[in-house]
Amino acid sequence: MSGVWNGKTPDASELAEPDEAARTSVPDAGGSLAYEDRVVALYLVETPYSLERAAEVIAGEQSTGTFTAVPGETASLKERHGAQIEWIVPLEETEAPTLPGAKLPPGHDGRYRRGKIVVSYPLVNFGPSIPNLMSAIAGNLFELQELSGLRLLDIELPEAFARRYPGPKFGLAGTRWLTGVYGRPIIGSIVKPSVGLSAEELGRLVYELAMAGLDFIKDDELNANPPYLPLDRKVRAVMEAIERAADATGKKTMYAFNITGDIDEMRRHHDAVVAAGGNCVMASVLSVGFAGLAHLNGYSEVPIHAHRNQWGMLTRCPGLGMEFAAFQKLCRLAGADHLHVNGLDSKFYESNESVVRSIRACASPLFGGYETVPVVSSAQWAGSAPATYEAIRSVDVMHLAGGGMLAHPDGPAAGFASMRQGWEAAAAGIPLGEYAATRPELARAIEKYGKG
Amino acid sequence: MSGVWNGKTPDASELAEPDEAARTSVPDAGGSLAYEDRVVALYLVETPYSLERAAEVIAGEQSTGTFTAVPGETASLKERHGAQIEWIVPLEETEAPTLPGAKLPPGHDGRYRRGKIVVSYPLVNFGPSIPNLMSAIAGNLFELQELSGLRLLDIELPEAFARRYPGPKFGLAGTRWLTGVYGRPIIGSIVKPSVGLSAEELGRLVYELAMAGLDFIKDDELNANPPYLPLDRKVRAVMEAIERAADATGKKTMYAFNITGDIDEMRRHHDAVVAAGGNCVMASVLSVGFAGLAHLNGYSEVPIHAHRNQWGMLTRCPGLGMEFAAFQKLCRLAGADHLHVNGLDSKFYESNESVVRSIRACASPLFGGYETVPVVSSAQWAGSAPATYEAIRSVDVMHLAGGGMLAHPDGPAAGFASMRQGWEAAAAGIPLGEYAATRPELARAIEKYGKG
Repeated sequence: MSGVWNGKTPDASELAEPDEAARTSVPDAGGSLAYEDRVVALYLVETPYSLERAAEVIAGEQSTGTFTAVPGETASLKERHGAQIEWIVPLEETEAPTLPGAKLPPGHDGRYRRGKIVVSYPLVNFGPSIPNLMSAIAGNLFELQELSGLRLLDIELPEAFARRYPGPKFGLAGTRWLTGVYGRPIIGSIVKPSVGLSAEELGRLVYELAMAGLDFIKDDELNANPPYLPLDRKVRAVMEAIERAADATGKKTMYAFNITGDIDEMRRHHDAVVAAGGNCVMASVLSVGFAGLAHLNGYSEVPIHAHRNQWGMLTRCPGLGMEFAAFQKLCRLAGADHLHVNGLDSKFYESNESVVRSIRACASPLFGGYETVPVVSSAQWAGSAPATYEAIRSVDVMHLAGGGMLAHPDGPAAGFASMRQGWEAAAAGIPLGEYAATRPELARAIEKYGKG
Repeated sequence: MSGVWNGKTPDASELAEPDEAARTSVPDAGGSLAYEDRVVALYLVETPYSLERAAEVIAGEQSTGTFTAVPGETASLKERHGAQIEWIVPLEETEAPTLPGAKLPPGHDGRYRRGKIVVSYPLVNFGPSIPNLMSAIAGNLFELQELSGLRLLDIELPEAFARRYPGPKFGLAGTRWLTGVYGRPIIGSIVKPSVGLSAEELGRLVYELAMAGLDFIKDDELNANPPYLPLDRKVRAVMEAIERAADATGKKTMYAFNITGDIDEMRRHHDAVVAAGGNCVMASVLSVGFAGLAHLNGYSEVPIHAHRNQWGMLTRCPGLGMEFAAFQKLCRLAGADHLHVNGLDSKFYESNESVVRSIRACASPLFGGYETVPVVSSAQWAGSAPATYEAIRSVDVMHLAGGGMLAHPDGPAAGFASMRQGWEAAAAGIPLGEYAATRPELARAIEKYGKG
């Protein structure tokens, strides 16, 4: 075993933390394990075998191996094309396997060993291709019977990927430029009810929200091109409202049209949005795949708002799937200008610590750039600002509230004002209640949404 | 609650089975819950709340809901666009949550309730679009804090999906016609070593296998368009070998070129395969997404061999993700002519019972057709035939062996012969050892690979 991570060799004590911390506090991914020609993957492994044996099975499965030796599998071929075990750091042991179906070694002692392992894969095996990268670093590994747990924690990609995938065209700077919002989060909302509004109803709502001064509005992920309101008609209704409001206010609200769909359909819908003067499209990454996202990024002329619905399927079991640290790199590489990360105290299972890690991950440079705007969303309102700001010490996020802004007792304009006031208070370090004393919108928001 | 599944209302006793059986023996999916305008999804749920409450949260989240009431969410809108709870069948309770992060209700009794629920979604919310279907039936559900487990077990789709997605163009009949193989499985192999062979080495190996009479050869999922042997060169080397062997034997072996890649790249590679006289392409479904697969199916002129690598990530945790019953429907709808299902006694964690269910699922009609060839693979050899045949009573599969055929002591031709002999014995009900008495290829295979 050899190798370094961010220029330093990790030792067991550094990584041997308990529980959630153990599985998520991966070495900071800003730097890179210095390979120009290898992809490096960090896994959490659980196995009834030794960690060394588990790592060998993983490396063998994902390079030259089959279950029995075959002709042509020479030592020099293995040398050139074999995956390599870089390091293994043991963590705790457990008596119950996380996942079913593991085969037990003869004389198994009843213990399942956990550890972090780093495996590097020769780039020459698959080239800088996200789809083929996934078959290499994930592939069949999760099904191996030598493992009772496997989670991809992080990846380091060689520069060749940056040459192949140009990444976000707009990112934070482009989104700030298009919305004209500086010095505070880009504050927006999601059309609610998610589904069912007619063109007229939607147009009226969007007009109201745009007149209220919102920076950003988006379709819900459940609403793309429904038969009762096809995207072309939706675009007409929404853009008429956006432009009419812009004529009155001088500010053109950014609207993310959900163009999630089949490959050619996405292109038609993107083009329809752009032709109508729209300035953002939205895609559900896991519905269209990294390949679909990268394809969209190949022709897109406006920021891509990337929604991560279905992500829970890949990440909620702590001993399976993938960490957001790895996922967000692939999203950014494929072109996500904005990327959803949940929010603090959301309606979802994710811990606030995990949400904060996700926001930070999006903000850390990838290949020196590839900036994406973390989209903080889910059960948010003005009162979500202080804790969020305290955790990230930054206003470089998009902050979305649905009901938490639209259902403000005095209407969306007051809701929007309350959100701005929440961030002002947060950035100034003034307690929310104190700041609200002279700001009725914030005061009324606290009255309605505040928990204490 | 109302509704039927396959024309009958399930009752609790019918579904209240323990453990794996409980989570997988979903009502047979051949029929359909009779809706022309709704998608029906069957879930396994685990919750610290009541099952009724969990079902309501699911239905609310995936239709009109937000965490607080918003203007415009009228009763008639909810009526038209709301998801509907069709039935709830309680299963066992447990004291430990399957997934982390569930919020506990006040006064929680320490129990987590499991059950099966069926939810139907109005098609009008998303239309017959696989990408948007996924956002509706999966979406953010797996992250809900009211749940400590959620698994999509099966789906029933209205005919509108069949009108939108034409499905496999070749399927079993087309693949049999192209390979000329009838009355037994289509027997093939995977190029091993998976990676690293030069064009010359690959050409030699493919020629040898084609001369050995193999019906089918495929690239490994790790090998698509590697820089050391770009697909165009691979196609030339392979097709030269295939054609030269066909000239000698009169039989053109089907070769599945792995064209997994970015969207436009796949099209170029498909066209290159077809232009060179190739007769099959392969794609890793989860690398290219359902949208990528459907796009490929929009222009493909040869069968699509669908590999399911990364599937373990979605399915190995019993309380999360998806069952193959649901997954295979989406693959077939999107155009999978062949679909991988693992094999009996494979190197993977999956139980033989689960593999058999998968094979049967692929064979059961979808919209009265959409036939796909189940691809039985992983640690297979001649001796895998009897148990496979006994379980499925059919030879309508593709049976792949890598090392189990290529590493036969007397070479690939003998390996191929042994596989055919294995299936002959199986179909005739003759014990393998007995059948091998006069068949040296099978005898030598048993000698090398047989475990007893």
